[in-house]
Amino acid sequence: MPLSRLPSPPYYAVIFASVRTDEDDEGYGITATEMSHLAAEQEGYLGQDSTARDGEGMGITVSYWRDEASIHAWKKQLDHTAARNMGREKWYKSYTLRVARVERAYDFDRPEQA
Amino acid sequence: MPLSRLPSPPYYAVIFASVRTDEDDEGYGITATEMSHLAAEQEGYLGQDSTARDGEGMGITVSYWRDEASIHAWKKQLDHTAARNMGREKWYKSYTLRVARVERAYDFDRPEQA
Repeated sequence: MPLSRLPSPPYYAVIFASVRTDEDDEGYGITATEMSHLAAEQEGYLGQDSTARDGEGMGITVSYWRDEASIHAWKKQLDHTAARNMGREKWYKSYTLRVARVERAYDFDRPEQA
Repeated sequence: MPLSRLPSPPYYAVIFASVRTDEDDEGYGITATEMSHLAAEQEGYLGQDSTARDGEGMGITVSYWRDEASIHAWKKQLDHTAARNMGREKWYKSYTLRVARVERAYDFDRPEQA
């Protein structure tokens, strides 16, 4: 997935860092993909950056939003709430979620080689 | 690496999402580790969350800082500046760097199983 290109700040970031349990997938992969698509349909969604989970089960997803109101609406979205409950019951050993106001952003792109 | 446990907000996050070039390591791994250790010695450093780079060369590191002044000092630190230049010359295909003020944070930890 290429890096997100966004409008100029200010906007909001939701930083979600998580460690999976050792249990079987039990729907985790499908739900994660569905939630990613569902987030992208929400009002105020700007983009996201996400890495594949590493060997220690650690993953980071940062999603970007126009304002706090769109983050709040996404938090209350019904399917998302159900997925979050499954996350706490089954899928995650631990996680941290941080809501932050992005104030400055810089992009770097290597010039294409001839 | 366990997830960072931090004091209560507000504090600052530097969200660094990057894609490596296809070139050989050329000192990247050693320098990345050194920079991680050097950051941790800086005044105002609070912690960081980082994933191993995935199969597409994508990685996300989020470092946390007490205030904007500590981020600014880290940006100007000499060894870090040299590493950043190498990053643009050799190591990274593209990256985005965002500075954000963390306003709310939530932690979840699964209760230990008996």
